[in-house]
Parts: sequence; C-alpha cells; structure tokens
Amino acid sequence: MPSASILYFGDTARVPYGTKSARTVTRFSLQIADYLISRDVNAIVVACNTASAYSLDRLRNGLDVPVFGVVEPGARAAAGVTKRGVVGVIGTRGTISSGAYQQAILSIDPEIKVVAAPCPLFVPLVEEGLLDDDVTFEIANRYLEPLILQGVDTLVLGCTHYPMLKSIISRIMGDDVILIDSADETSMEVREYVESKTGVTGTETGSVRFEVSDSPTQFTDVGRIFLNEELENVTRVTLEEGD
Amino acid sequence: MPSASILYFGDTARVPYGTKSARTVTRFSLQIADYLISRDVNAIVVACNTASAYSLDRLRNGLDVPVFGVVEPGARAAAGVTKRGVVGVIGTRGTISSGAYQQAILSIDPEIKVVAAPCPLFVPLVEEGLLDDDVTFEIANRYLEPLILQGVDTLVLGCTHYPMLKSIISRIMGDDVILIDSADETSMEVREYVESKTGVTGTETGSVRFEVSDSPTQFTDVGRIFLNEELENVTRVTLEEGD
Repeated sequence: MPSASILYFGDTARVPYGTKSARTVTRFSLQIADYLISRDVNAIVVACNTASAYSLDRLRNGLDVPVFGVVEPGARAAAGVTKRGVVGVIGTRGTISSGAYQQAILSIDPEIKVVAAPCPLFVPLVEEGLLDDDVTFEIANRYLEPLILQGVDTLVLGCTHYPMLKSIISRIMGDDVILIDSADETSMEVREYVESKTGVTGTETGSVRFEVSDSPTQFTDVGRIFLNEELENVTRVTLEEGD
Repeated sequence: MPSASILYFGDTARVPYGTKSARTVTRFSLQIADYLISRDVNAIVVACNTASAYSLDRLRNGLDVPVFGVVEPGARAAAGVTKRGVVGVIGTRGTISSGAYQQAILSIDPEIKVVAAPCPLFVPLVEEGLLDDDVTFEIANRYLEPLILQGVDTLVLGCTHYPMLKSIISRIMGDDVILIDSADETSMEVREYVESKTGVTGTETGSVRFEVSDSPTQFTDVGRIFLNEELENVTRVTLEEGD
C-alpha cells in the first residue's frame, strides 16, 4: 500500500502484553487507541495478538473508526486450508487463555477440532535473537509435541514474534503442516479495505512513522531482527502522566 | 522484623524493568515512590536491582524518607569476601549496562577486578518455573563460562530472580565460588536501620500487605515459586490515569 500513511505505535515501556491480565491489556489498548485517534488516524490495526484477543470488542464499541484485529484473519485462513479439520493455535498465555482463536475458528466451522498451546518462552527467545538455536529447538519441541500427537494439519502462529521461528517450528511440525501467519492475513484484509474505501491502489508515496513509549534505540535493535533493515523515523511518546 | 509493617508494591502491569531504558525505569520508580509516600511509609527499599542501579540517586534526592537500594549491600558483601579479588556480577541488561555494581565495588576497593555479564533469559526461565531444567542449565552455562575463564571467586546474583537458580549456578561455577544474594544483604542492612531507629527488636506482630498493578492471581502464581507459600493480602492498585 504505497499510498497509505502508517503511524505505528509500540508500547515498549510496558511490553510484554502476553503475560498480563485481560483488564490491564484492555486498559493499555484503550489508552493507545485514544492516542491514535487524537493523531487523526482513519483506521486502527490491533497488531498484537494478545490485545486483539482480549480487547477487540471493547475497542470496536468505543471507537468511530474501523478496528482490525489479527485473530479473525488468522482463524479464517486456518479454517480455509485445514484438510483433516485439526487446527493448532499457538500464542502467549493471554491469547490462548482468552479462547479468542478457538472461538473464531469454531464460529466459522464448528466441526474443526482446535488444539491450543501457550508458548511463553518464544517471545524472550526471539528478542534475544536465538532464532536458530538448540535451546529454542528444545523448548519448541516441548511446546509443539502435544499438537503433533493430536494430528494438527494446520498451525496458526498467533503471536507477532512466532513467524521469526518459522524454520524451527516447521522442522518440528513437518513439511505437511501448513503454518498460518496472522500478520500476513491481516495485512491483506486491511489492504482490501483501504483500496475499496479510497479507490487508490497507486504508487504515491505514503509515510511510515514509528512511535514508541520507551527508548527508540532498544526498539530499533529489536526491529532489525524482524525487518532486516534499519528503522528510521522512530520517536518516543509518553502516554501516561508522571513523566 | 516481626514488629515492622511492610507494604510491598509490585509493578506487575509494567514488568520486566530489566529490558527497559534508564529514563523509563526512573519514571516508573519515582511514580511508585510517590505512591508509597502517600501511604505514609517511613522508609523505602528499592528491591529491584535494575531500579536500584538506574534510579537510586534520583529517588534519594527527591524524597524525605531513607531509601535503601540492593546494589550497595551486595557490592559491600562481595568486596568483603573475595579472596583473589576477582568478583563477578550478573544481572539484567539494564543493571549491567548501568555499571552501578561495578562502580560500587570499585569505590570500596579499586584493586578488585569486576567481571560483569547480563543474563537476560534468566527472568523468563524462572517465571516459567524452569528452575532445575536442562535448558536453563545450557543457557546458564553460556552466560557464566566467560566469568569462569576470568577466574571469578565471588559472584553477585544481581537480580531478584537469580537466587532461584542458585543450585544450577553453583553447579556451573563450582563449590569454591561464593554466591552473594543482594536481597539477603539488603534485608540485614534494613533491619539494622529499623532496630537502631525504633529500638524495637521485639516480637509484636507487624503486618504485610502486597499491592500490585496487575492481576493479584498472576502475582500469587509467581509468588508461590519464590516463597513456597500462598500469598495473602494481595490487592490491585492502579498508579496511572486512564483506568
């Protein structure tokens, strides 16, 4: 979407969200949404799986702009491709215990068997850059073994960080298991919306700005792992009082 | 100190601190100190190593009550027991990069060689309860090997969570290396202060209250790993606006 201007807000002062309660994650999410609205955004993508799982309804009810979550697109893609009807979902403790993916998949096809498993050490392992490491493999093996035993044929990577572990996850699950990246699915859905709304598919150059609640330096360090490039335009913004 | 009343505040909505910047940790610490002062405490113990390392001076300058950190007591104990004069310090990225332990030890004895190493995966591993696990052993081995090669004879466990890994750390470092638990040293210092101040060493029963910024349930789950008992009197408190 080269014509779209994107304002990314990362709550780096308060991450991770995946270990926090529904109430706290929803409080933070509403605060961030208010901030984005004050910056005149036309739509909001809740790109964090835990925030999508816990807070999407509250955000949609409270806001006048369209709000996209990552759970529905991921669930839809998984329900669409599963062959034997056994879908695995991995995510943070918060995402899994919310039951959001499980519900979303069953509401599309109640015949699908959903097997969900939290993988709480994946986020710190990715942030430490241990993407292709024996320790990560050993931990992943423990988390994924029950999913293999249950005959999962499709696996939703239900957390921002997990696609970074695709190669290890795929080695453990086997080539036959289809991995669904919720971020990819969501991006396509958002693009469809923006293009249908504006009629613009074009080549004009939009802008990308990154704003974070903690130090830009630490954010660009982690950003490099994810995007394989140097992030520019990163500034610090404080949402709460007391600075 | 059975006569003392203790108000514990845990910022569980915004932990971990060990990966955050000096500015953010100091902002959170000042906010919490203000809250504790509003609750009429007579002294404050900054029981988090990262907050002690980054924010102790700011807290001491800003407050009218005595403020105890964990860095100085740990540094003093290490400088007191080292035989060959080679002290290791392990902690979060924040604690190590602040240089606080290194400075505190050198200000006691500039002849001591200090070898510091961040161990960023220890906190998530402890919170997952992997206290005696092959994966934790393998990670600890990587972190500690350089300290062994440098001939460390005393090792400061400079993070709240690390004493939970004492048995693994001790197995790797060898029986000859003395492990210093900053929390133990700090407790003794605080007890001396309280007893000298109040003259009370007695047996009256003080109270213990736990307050946390996220769900009490999650806090009691982790508290059980640390204290081997059920925490009671845990309530939720929100410091920031926007609730």
